[in-house]
Amino acid sequence: MGTTERVIYFAGSIRGGRDDSALYAQLIERLRGFGRVLTEHVGGASLTAEGETGSARDIHDRDLSWLKSADVVVAEVTTPSLGVGYEIARATEWGKPVLCLFRPGAGRSLSAMISGCPQVMVREYAAVTDADSILEEFFGP
Amino acid sequence: MGTTERVIYFAGSIRGGRDDSALYAQLIERLRGFGRVLTEHVGGASLTAEGETGSARDIHDRDLSWLKSADVVVAEVTTPSLGVGYEIARATEWGKPVLCLFRPGAGRSLSAMISGCPQVMVREYAAVTDADSILEEFFGP
Repeated sequence: MGTTERVIYFAGSIRGGRDDSALYAQLIERLRGFGRVLTEHVGGASLTAEGETGSARDIHDRDLSWLKSADVVVAEVTTPSLGVGYEIARATEWGKPVLCLFRPGAGRSLSAMISGCPQVMVREYAAVTDADSILEEFFGP
Repeated sequence: MGTTERVIYFAGSIRGGRDDSALYAQLIERLRGFGRVLTEHVGGASLTAEGETGSARDIHDRDLSWLKSADVVVAEVTTPSLGVGYEIARATEWGKPVLCLFRPGAGRSLSAMISGCPQVMVREYAAVTDADSILEEFFGP
């Protein structure tokens, strides 16, 4: 049939803090309706702020290889994270569409490097159910 | 005489949290011994986690223009920050030398995207006085 599945890189905070890990898992579940998600471990309940085991270089190179192979990036940016910011910048340099989801109700201000980046689509939301229409807008018909 | 002053981009958390702002100011003061620092406002005591006023697009474009014009980047990466991660990735894409300073005693784990990035020099330290020898190593004779 020749149908190629869309490949999605989901970015969320790991060592920056795991306050939103359950939400990441819910977003990843929804993203599965739009394509194949490479980074399902980001929503894993057993993954703590200490991060994955293994060498940092291996994790970095694996994630960058996944990012390079992805068609699009979806990032949850409410919890500040060096890694998520890093991945967004790499993706924009590589010309990939990036959607950033931010919850204003969490009491944080979003970095101007993200909200002011012209290559990034930033959308605010309150609950995971609000994300459906945003994802439909981002991925298109 | 033709001596060209080295231009330094200092990166530290703003909207990610201002816990280390006094330390940023001390690091910027030390960096002045090695060149001209473009981003002295990052250490400003009056700058809160709400960030600078003005449009996010203007802040983003100004900071990226400064980053592009800098010879080197020095980042304090103990407080997780989307903007700092974004700036590090852009700088590595552009081939600029990047030094990341991290304080293990603060009880956080550094992102594997930073500690595992082969284009970044990561150095751990405990107090700002320890930074002197690290800066001398990074900037060279």
